[in-house]
Amino acid sequence: MAAKIQVTVWNEGRHEKKNPVVAKVYPKGIHGAIAEALNAQPDIAARTATLDEPEHGLSDEVLRGTDVLTWWGHMAHDDVADAVVDKVHQRALEGMGLIVLHSGHLAKIFRRLMGTSCTLRWREDGAREVLWVTCPAHPIAAGIDDCIILPHTEMYGEFFDIPQPDETIFISNFAGGEVFRSGLTFRRGAGRIFYFRPGHETFPIYHDPAVRKVLANAVRWAAPTGSMKIECPHKPLGWFEKPV
Amino acid sequence: MAAKIQVTVWNEGRHEKKNPVVAKVYPKGIHGAIAEALNAQPDIAARTATLDEPEHGLSDEVLRGTDVLTWWGHMAHDDVADAVVDKVHQRALEGMGLIVLHSGHLAKIFRRLMGTSCTLRWREDGAREVLWVTCPAHPIAAGIDDCIILPHTEMYGEFFDIPQPDETIFISNFAGGEVFRSGLTFRRGAGRIFYFRPGHETFPIYHDPAVRKVLANAVRWAAPTGSMKIECPHKPLGWFEKPV
Amino acid sequence: MAAKIQVTVWNEGRHEKKNPVVAKVYPKGIHGAIAEALNAQPDIAARTATLDEPEHGLSDEVLRGTDVLTWWGHMAHDDVADAVVDKVHQRALEGMGLIVLHSGHLAKIFRRLMGTSCTLRWREDGAREVLWVTCPAHPIAAGIDDCIILPHTEMYGEFFDIPQPDETIFISNFAGGEVFRSGLTFRRGAGRIFYFRPGHETFPIYHDPAVRKVLANAVRWAAPTGSMKIECPHKPLGWFEKPV
Amino acid sequence: MAAKIQVTVWNEGRHEKKNPVVAKVYPKGIHGAIAEALNAQPDIAARTATLDEPEHGLSDEVLRGTDVLTWWGHMAHDDVADAVVDKVHQRALEGMGLIVLHSGHLAKIFRRLMGTSCTLRWREDGAREVLWVTCPAHPIAAGIDDCIILPHTEMYGEFFDIPQPDETIFISNFAGGEVFRSGLTFRRGAGRIFYFRPGHETFPIYHDPAVRKVLANAVRWAAPTGSMKIECPHKPLGWFEKPV
Repeated sequence: MAAKIQVTVWNEGRHEKKNPVVAKVYPKGIHGAIAEALNAQPDIAARTATLDEPEHGLSDEVLRGTDVLTWWGHMAHDDVADAVVDKVHQRALEGMGLIVLHSGHLAKIFRRLMGTSCTLRWREDGAREVLWVTCPAHPIAAGIDDCIILPHTEMYGEFFDIPQPDETIFISNFAGGEVFRSGLTFRRGAGRIFYFRPGHETFPIYHDPAVRKVLANAVRWAAPTGSMKIECPHKPLGWFEKPV
Repeated sequence: MAAKIQVTVWNEGRHEKKNPVVAKVYPKGIHGAIAEALNAQPDIAARTATLDEPEHGLSDEVLRGTDVLTWWGHMAHDDVADAVVDKVHQRALEGMGLIVLHSGHLAKIFRRLMGTSCTLRWREDGAREVLWVTCPAHPIAAGIDDCIILPHTEMYGEFFDIPQPDETIFISNFAGGEVFRSGLTFRRGAGRIFYFRPGHETFPIYHDPAVRKVLANAVRWAAPTGSMKIECPHKPLGWFEKPV
Repeated sequence: MAAKIQVTVWNEGRHEKKNPVVAKVYPKGIHGAIAEALNAQPDIAARTATLDEPEHGLSDEVLRGTDVLTWWGHMAHDDVADAVVDKVHQRALEGMGLIVLHSGHLAKIFRRLMGTSCTLRWREDGAREVLWVTCPAHPIAAGIDDCIILPHTEMYGEFFDIPQPDETIFISNFAGGEVFRSGLTFRRGAGRIFYFRPGHETFPIYHDPAVRKVLANAVRWAAPTGSMKIECPHKPLGWFEKPV
Repeated sequence: MAAKIQVTVWNEGRHEKKNPVVAKVYPKGIHGAIAEALNAQPDIAARTATLDEPEHGLSDEVLRGTDVLTWWGHMAHDDVADAVVDKVHQRALEGMGLIVLHSGHLAKIFRRLMGTSCTLRWREDGAREVLWVTCPAHPIAAGIDDCIILPHTEMYGEFFDIPQPDETIFISNFAGGEVFRSGLTFRRGAGRIFYFRPGHETFPIYHDPAVRKVLANAVRWAAPTGSMKIECPHKPLGWFEKPV
């Protein structure tokens, strides 16, 4: 039997502590809900880590043992230590998968990897979002027929200041008239990155079966298929020729 | 003074003949409206060509003298002679610009250049479309602030079966809940191609000032900046070294 | 146990009949060598088909049962019936994987899918080619450290007239001074396409272990992960909303 | 008459001070040579700025008045103040063009914009580089027929750890057997970025007429065609609808 994909579900975890509404929607935290969804899959083993743990729960040992890291943050992006961001960045380039969720678009690690401002427009109006599949047969959209309907969400609108994605898997229609590229892949170094828009602290998005399906698909897609060593070496003439 | 960009505005021109509603919206034909919009620009000289002219109005001489060709067709794609498609295809690869409009997504020349089925989903419900700029500062979007609002249009929905575009300039929100990648660039050979969704035979889309602005921007963007010779030559060792 | 990936290895098969040198390098044909390499893998089942069989060996039944088709042709591209190309094209868009090899760059099916002339520059000088990995950790490059060295090959040089690839996995250095993008992926419809440059009728390229490894990797990568129906349907308002 | 494109040519300027060989090749500094090449163009006005000037010569006023910034650095990347990098980064996203040259691949500003390590392999062997045009008719390659030959250069080899470029304009063949993607465009925010590999402190690369032609072409290509405001605003329902 193949080894399970080792996932670390990272969450800021502050909204849950401060806002009883959030605590009610996510009694085990947003991280708890996501980990639960992933652990329901036979090939995935998910644990959690949060901002207020030592090293934000992301020690060298934890990172070394992580195939795919998922990231949720919103109100405390600046409280994430640069040293931890450095390590996550390096691991991602070396091959670790990274799934950035919703308001994680402004997380240090995402802005670091994108190189842009990652800004967008937003409105918490609880109106309908429809995410359309724009890359059929992509493994991340497996099991999603045409679209995902989320009856009540926060709106995110273009322009979303990111580099051109490698693949655009989902594009959202918001009832208020906006659109958003909401499922995007980026290859950086040896690592695969997936940004997925859905998710909010008060709308119960991570309980939605279609959203949970995409999360599991994305974990499988982002799992490492190789690694890269970050170095900039001098190479003598003929170095690549195999000895006879 | 720089020479004007020579544009040939091609139109199937059948709806105008058969449907009095269309004839009323476009008394000089869809081609007439587009040519008029372009000729209002100081740097563009547009003439027209239609399906029912000899060689569909696209003789070798006309094509040779065309910097940018715009294409509108809908009900008679199959009536376009393959020999003409061959010539337009070759000219496009050699460097001529090509702007494909609305229902031209199923035109032979567009499917030929894309290599895919170019299918999509549609509904003539006359509801609102909002085209959002997703590539700010792109010359094709010059003068468009955030979006273009078309109060009454036909709906086109994803999945739009095209290769990944080089650039996605506009994405549309339709009031019915769909989305569509509606302003797309593709480089093929030495030629630049722009697909632009807006346009319909009964909705007066080509009278809209913002649509006209994009058309003129696109002509400037697609104008040739070089050319390519289509050949697959044997090259002897050292052929590229300049004689001393 | 998972079902094996069903591969059909297609070959023009004319050089082998006409040229004793080719027949000596590939006693079972180029198709025989490729099928042998693939059948050495536990998860792949390869059969062959050639130009001179009825329907070129690509009946509806064969195509229906094919997960991935590999294509080698050179001197007889024009002898491939358009009706067969139509069927292969449709199957590829619907989700079948397609691997186009070497001189297949001018095959009807490849030019059809690319939409460009697919021309390049060439020289049969038997000099060294080094293919460098430019997308580390991509599954198609699994097991290839830095590069593949082919001591004696035909040269293919840029400009290679193709659309921008989705991913550039290999770029070749030729001893004569040229370069070539030699391992390229393209998504078209629901299908995955891989173009791989190495291969020639008189140089024993398909006996090279690294080339064989890439072929097997590419088959796994191109195997269908979903399908698409080619249609352009009218959709009534609200069609995507699930009935309660 | 149209206003000239305002270019600031930035150079670290340390090699010139420490190494008489460099000072002999570039008596006015690398910046002096590049500025001279650009100022020979009728539509470009270039000034210079160097590391050891106050604010590295890049005050707010200078940056505000800069349409396109070119960047050369090598031995003192770490001496560039983060505050200056922050400002250049912001200006680039807002629309300023940026041309990064040669060893600038490890400059803070380039790594910041790419989000990757930007590492590569290298060798100062003074052997031949041939840069092949892989995007014909691109304005950056205007006037370059097939390739640029540099008889004696430093080698840069793949894997070059960058995000997938928007366009690959040049790919290099090195006599030692390596390849390198050596002319690359990236759009970030409203800004255009061009990375161009040629250039070294002891080889007289910036005196080469073809290299100078590409630099001038790149300046024209990177000149702003619009701007973007970096913000992440709340937008009320209907905000984009124009008042009647």
